[in-house]
Amino acid sequence: MSENFDISSLEDCLVKHIPPNELKEVKRILYGRSDDNAIPICETAKKIAEKNKFEVKSYQFDALSEDSRSPRIVKIGAIQNSIVASTSEPISKQRDAIHQKIGNIIDAAGADGVNILCLQEAWPMPFAFCTREKHPWCQFAESVENGPTTLFLKERAIKYNMIILSSILERDEDHSDQLWNTVVVISNSGKVMGKHRKNHIPRVGDFNESTYYMEGNTGHPVYDTQFGKIAINICYGRHHPQNWMMFGLNGAEIVFNPSATVIGALSEPLWGIEARNAAIANSYFTVAINRVGTETFPNEFSSGDGKPAHKDFGPFYGSSYVAAPDGSRSPGLSRNKDGLLICQIDLNLCRQIKDKWGFRMTQRLSLYGEKFSEASKLDYKPQVVKEN
Amino acid sequence: MSENFDISSLEDCLVKHIPPNELKEVKRILYGRSDDNAIPICETAKKIAEKNKFEVKSYQFDALSEDSRSPRIVKIGAIQNSIVASTSEPISKQRDAIHQKIGNIIDAAGADGVNILCLQEAWPMPFAFCTREKHPWCQFAESVENGPTTLFLKERAIKYNMIILSSILERDEDHSDQLWNTVVVISNSGKVMGKHRKNHIPRVGDFNESTYYMEGNTGHPVYDTQFGKIAINICYGRHHPQNWMMFGLNGAEIVFNPSATVIGALSEPLWGIEARNAAIANSYFTVAINRVGTETFPNEFSSGDGKPAHKDFGPFYGSSYVAAPDGSRSPGLSRNKDGLLICQIDLNLCRQIKDKWGFRMTQRLSLYGEKFSEASKLDYKPQVVKEN
Repeated sequence: MSENFDISSLEDCLVKHIPPNELKEVKRILYGRSDDNAIPICETAKKIAEKNKFEVKSYQFDALSEDSRSPRIVKIGAIQNSIVASTSEPISKQRDAIHQKIGNIIDAAGADGVNILCLQEAWPMPFAFCTREKHPWCQFAESVENGPTTLFLKERAIKYNMIILSSILERDEDHSDQLWNTVVVISNSGKVMGKHRKNHIPRVGDFNESTYYMEGNTGHPVYDTQFGKIAINICYGRHHPQNWMMFGLNGAEIVFNPSATVIGALSEPLWGIEARNAAIANSYFTVAINRVGTETFPNEFSSGDGKPAHKDFGPFYGSSYVAAPDGSRSPGLSRNKDGLLICQIDLNLCRQIKDKWGFRMTQRLSLYGEKFSEASKLDYKPQVVKEN
Repeated sequence: MSENFDISSLEDCLVKHIPPNELKEVKRILYGRSDDNAIPICETAKKIAEKNKFEVKSYQFDALSEDSRSPRIVKIGAIQNSIVASTSEPISKQRDAIHQKIGNIIDAAGADGVNILCLQEAWPMPFAFCTREKHPWCQFAESVENGPTTLFLKERAIKYNMIILSSILERDEDHSDQLWNTVVVISNSGKVMGKHRKNHIPRVGDFNESTYYMEGNTGHPVYDTQFGKIAINICYGRHHPQNWMMFGLNGAEIVFNPSATVIGALSEPLWGIEARNAAIANSYFTVAINRVGTETFPNEFSSGDGKPAHKDFGPFYGSSYVAAPDGSRSPGLSRNKDGLLICQIDLNLCRQIKDKWGFRMTQRLSLYGEKFSEASKLDYKPQVVKEN
């Protein structure tokens, strides 16, 4: 599936038009590195990608060598994809078709030795919350432990010794069948290590998610895995720096941000800014993952923008990327094609950058704890100065 | 003064090389707007700029029209400049020479009707904190109320009916002669409306500022002026999202960020990200202002990077810009030339974007007040999940 965009990738456009000498400087200013840090992708992965028509990009982030610690090299992967079957097909058929597509991309990631893989937000379903219809879409909701998607991924986690972060619509049968927007953390042992629920829920444009589920009640967990300390900030939570910050305070070295965001909502100019700012401010790696493609629904819906009702809300723009604690970032995947981004990182960079820039040391945390608490009270008086 | 950079301006480089059709999309993705929103600059201002060899750029940010409020159009200005006299000249001679240069640029801003003007960090002096020498540099410290720089600006504030934000090294004679990194808020009435002290102090590379002054004790004041509610986040405070956030919670509509940062410290890839992320996350305008030029000092100093001692620490890279709450931004001033950036904004955009995106409503402030307080305690146990 591919949309007809004027440019399919910002980076490719820059490389195409800007002369090498200036391009070096442009890349340094925009992306933090002048050089092309691509690493080789194995033949098996390349073949799977070619056969199944998805893009694979790779990138590498180094750290200084240390006497006191060995390098902690980890390969992380991010997948962006369009849906497969029509949204008017039966639910299970739609899900199975996506499972099949993603199975192939996971095979490529596994062949290339990816240690931690994150899928896009609500990956086994269309992003149907735009419709505000409860039926039939709520049928996509699954159990964290034993839903078809978790079962599908457990096998592959074991096969490839890979941690998989799977964003689903959760059905919590132990709490009155409530729905949640949840990421399931599947360990490389094949066990469910835990779940994290989306902390901040949008009510903007077509993203009527507060109609379906509430703000998450799982805090800011960090998963201490064989491949580093990881956390998940789901979609709209990327707009909230205090949310990113709590994952850092709990020790995260990589924070994944599975998302779903479209051109029409004017979020694209924000996309390159927010996850990258979080990497800088918190001295950890961030992985921003967006969906691609346009999803069309059976019944028309309106978008709260005064325009006529319609059956789709414009293309998701992909552009998934990885940002590093030193402020540099990888190229993005395309804006309109299925893709797998593989980055090899050295986790030691996190602490090195903490030491270098000193943002944690200088953060005055107790002051802000106090101030935020004060500002949240009903009788808060803002600190405002007026001329006498 | 001008440095020999490969590219003097990122935006000019893009415009020069990318074909119009694709440039439109590149500008939309990178800057949030496809169109050239420059506004005319008056002839007097142009003439002053030409005579005194500084650049003037302009830009405009619109808002929707409302029934319940008239547009609140304000012109804001930012000045970036190199120093003038040699750093081996007497202190007063160095300061007077900078005053004279800035006087001309203020005349241009005044002629063009700028309402609020902000100067770069520690503008009446070289950024001598790299040396760690107390003498002679501490002699640049001035009284907020009656120092030569405040007196110089008061006249012009009255003449042009202009609020001026003046970043100085402060000498507080009422508190044992302590030094502070302070912005003086000079009202358009010519009175000192207040002062704000830098909240977060760097200890990185050549920025040995903690050797000279402590973390600010003035909180997060917002100045309710004739031209809107404004605040100041000084330099290194831009790396701290919680600092930006408190100014927003106190009601700021524009937050100025007078800074001093150089290429060597690897901050340039962060520059376009941080103030812009703050504008997005807090639904206000931000104004990022950096110095330009290379400052050479009489005695050599080392930079804590294992390299030989030297007498300068590389060029400040300018690139001052304005970011809007909707995520769009103005072009930057050049990386190597004195400049005045003028932006006409409609403050109504702030509340419109608050309503649209809902980041305040969804921020869960009391939760984070509590969490930050917990995380700042000595016995804090991070929320970490390990596999059984």
